[in-house]
Amino acid sequence: MSGQTNRRIDGKRLWDSLMDMARFGATPKGGVKRLTLTDIDRQGRDHFRARCEAAGLTVRVDAIGNMFARRPGRDPARLPVLMGSHLDSQPSGGKFDGALGVIAGLEVMHSLNDLGIETEAPIELVNWTDEEGSRFGHSLMGSGTWAGIHALDYVYGLKDVEGISVKDALEGIGYAGPEPAKPFPADAYFELHIEQGPILEAEGKQIGIVTGGQAQVWYDAVVIGQDSHAGTTPPRARRDALVGAARIIDLVDRLMRARGEDGRGTVGELHVIPNSRNVVPGEVRFSVEFRHPDPAEIETLAATFPAEATALAEAAGTRLTLKELFRIPAQPFAPDCVDLVRQAAARLGYSAREIVSGAGHDAIFVAQHVPTAMIFTPCKDGLSHNEAESIEPEEAAAGCQVLFEAVVARANRKL
Amino acid sequence: MSGQTNRRIDGKRLWDSLMDMARFGATPKGGVKRLTLTDIDRQGRDHFRARCEAAGLTVRVDAIGNMFARRPGRDPARLPVLMGSHLDSQPSGGKFDGALGVIAGLEVMHSLNDLGIETEAPIELVNWTDEEGSRFGHSLMGSGTWAGIHALDYVYGLKDVEGISVKDALEGIGYAGPEPAKPFPADAYFELHIEQGPILEAEGKQIGIVTGGQAQVWYDAVVIGQDSHAGTTPPRARRDALVGAARIIDLVDRLMRARGEDGRGTVGELHVIPNSRNVVPGEVRFSVEFRHPDPAEIETLAATFPAEATALAEAAGTRLTLKELFRIPAQPFAPDCVDLVRQAAARLGYSAREIVSGAGHDAIFVAQHVPTAMIFTPCKDGLSHNEAESIEPEEAAAGCQVLFEAVVARANRKL
Repeated sequence: MSGQTNRRIDGKRLWDSLMDMARFGATPKGGVKRLTLTDIDRQGRDHFRARCEAAGLTVRVDAIGNMFARRPGRDPARLPVLMGSHLDSQPSGGKFDGALGVIAGLEVMHSLNDLGIETEAPIELVNWTDEEGSRFGHSLMGSGTWAGIHALDYVYGLKDVEGISVKDALEGIGYAGPEPAKPFPADAYFELHIEQGPILEAEGKQIGIVTGGQAQVWYDAVVIGQDSHAGTTPPRARRDALVGAARIIDLVDRLMRARGEDGRGTVGELHVIPNSRNVVPGEVRFSVEFRHPDPAEIETLAATFPAEATALAEAAGTRLTLKELFRIPAQPFAPDCVDLVRQAAARLGYSAREIVSGAGHDAIFVAQHVPTAMIFTPCKDGLSHNEAESIEPEEAAAGCQVLFEAVVARANRKL
Repeated sequence: MSGQTNRRIDGKRLWDSLMDMARFGATPKGGVKRLTLTDIDRQGRDHFRARCEAAGLTVRVDAIGNMFARRPGRDPARLPVLMGSHLDSQPSGGKFDGALGVIAGLEVMHSLNDLGIETEAPIELVNWTDEEGSRFGHSLMGSGTWAGIHALDYVYGLKDVEGISVKDALEGIGYAGPEPAKPFPADAYFELHIEQGPILEAEGKQIGIVTGGQAQVWYDAVVIGQDSHAGTTPPRARRDALVGAARIIDLVDRLMRARGEDGRGTVGELHVIPNSRNVVPGEVRFSVEFRHPDPAEIETLAATFPAEATALAEAAGTRLTLKELFRIPAQPFAPDCVDLVRQAAARLGYSAREIVSGAGHDAIFVAQHVPTAMIFTPCKDGLSHNEAESIEPEEAAAGCQVLFEAVVARANRKL
């Protein structure tokens, strides 16, 4: 097995290919605006298809626009090993979020060709439709439809702010494919992605061995008090909704920290009514979310947070209405696939640590049907969903090499 | 003196006159929209002038549009006793805020005529221009210019959102008067006004004996952290500006309550940036104000609040920038004028209590030059700056009767 460290992906070709893909929807600030199912997305997809076909891959497209580029294995009866990510971007996105996983997969294919390697199992490179969800309001749309989370007709009917439906947009760019959008048997799925967080960079780690996705619970909260004159209303008569909300914001932060460094608790969006300098606020609407890799922690939080928050609101003379929007179960990744990532990083001498994915990814849905693992690279300042999103060429190359090792090892494993 | 309780203002005529004035700018919800220096304001002023002249008063107008309606006294050498308030309203205002003090003064004049009373000193009824400040951004504009707080040229140059200047608007409605807008010697000033707060109603008091205006300090606050992904950013890496701001909001409330029922501390306006559900907030901008009748309390607050708030921001990994916008000194009213109000309420058998004005009023500026007192009436639910603002006819009549007593006693006092 040690001979495999001689079989290297081409870091320069990888970086050039990343910069090449970044031309589609390039912004003046060095980012990418390549919204799903727009003409810019079409150009990016066409370019990707051309690169795949030039590498000898056979490309097929399913009914929700997911693209699959297949490299045959020696044994066509074996289930394929999948790798990939997404080529669509945020409105003010960067060059690497999603594109890294797809273009690194393309580099794996090129390297397999250059090295004359024939794997036992076929390998397929995937571009999932609309991972970001900025345009039609449903992130992980392509992988979610494939995985059976969403019905195709439902997704076809989703509309953007201009009233254009997914179906019309998909057909408009020529990517409503003939393949059914449903899970097919596959042996494994590996996704390389930037961390979109600060941990790997802070700890000087080159590779994140991703063990799974977090359990989450999301709420909409409304605190109702009574608006009144800031100068004439004495303390005893106040029902200040912002004071009530402030104490709940503090509670969310304390609950997060009580669960150690794995916990996440955030109030990200907040609106004050009437939001006027000399009016004691009568109403505050805000979002609350908790995340944790251990679903039991989320269950505990969901059982206790509402009552604690309600008590804080009442102590401020206000009333809390808390609406749970959804709960997402934790999604552990397949231990044997995660092991392949761990072993590859060790074999290659990369510093690595286990990490839970803090963000949603196509891998979370694919994992419901296919043994899955993810590989993280650091990103500068943990910044993503931002035109300044940035990684080093060496970091991209290291992630791609780990992807290569894991995919090849899995495709050649003894059944 | 007890004979004076037989000399009564006409409660019905008062109420009819209030409803009559409320026709100018009447809204479907029963409120008033009579913005300063609009044509509706002109109609209200013309109506007021006509009523004054019909009551035998001589009306003069100064350069900022303040109107003075004079009833001669027996001794023209004596300084006049002033009474009044403002006829302009909020955009969604009520029928009583400001109009009560002016129309009640008109009722005082009518009653003096009906009762054949000649006072020693002249009496002048005042309509101050633009108390509300909604249109040109400067509340207490007319009284402030008269009192020398603002230079006339500066005020003339203020513009509304459509770019119309005060000067042009004033001249457009024909109320740029020939009298200089500057303080003239006067013996006293009495202003009747609704409380705009909940205290009198809650305690079942008919009359508020207003002892002065509060000291105030106003700030703009900005808490800066770092926006980051809500799912991928662990607790230790967070610099959550909303958590920092929330703790400062709680501090403001605690500091208010530590000072008993006379304190006021409010965060009324707040903006979160970027204000997105799954982004840890990087910046929060908000207003802070404190009020207290005792200026020493405001001095103490202004000395300690910045450091305490800064410490809270830093403990949350954020940075606070606090900008003091202004400090308003407490304005005690003249004890002998306040006494006249107290004695009148007692003589008339009205339940009364001393109260500090929580809102700004023209009287606060006039008091810098003229011995001043205010009389408050209750208002339903303490509601004001709202079309549903409401008082009972008996409450209006009681306030007007106290105004009558105090003005007549002052105008007839032995020098």
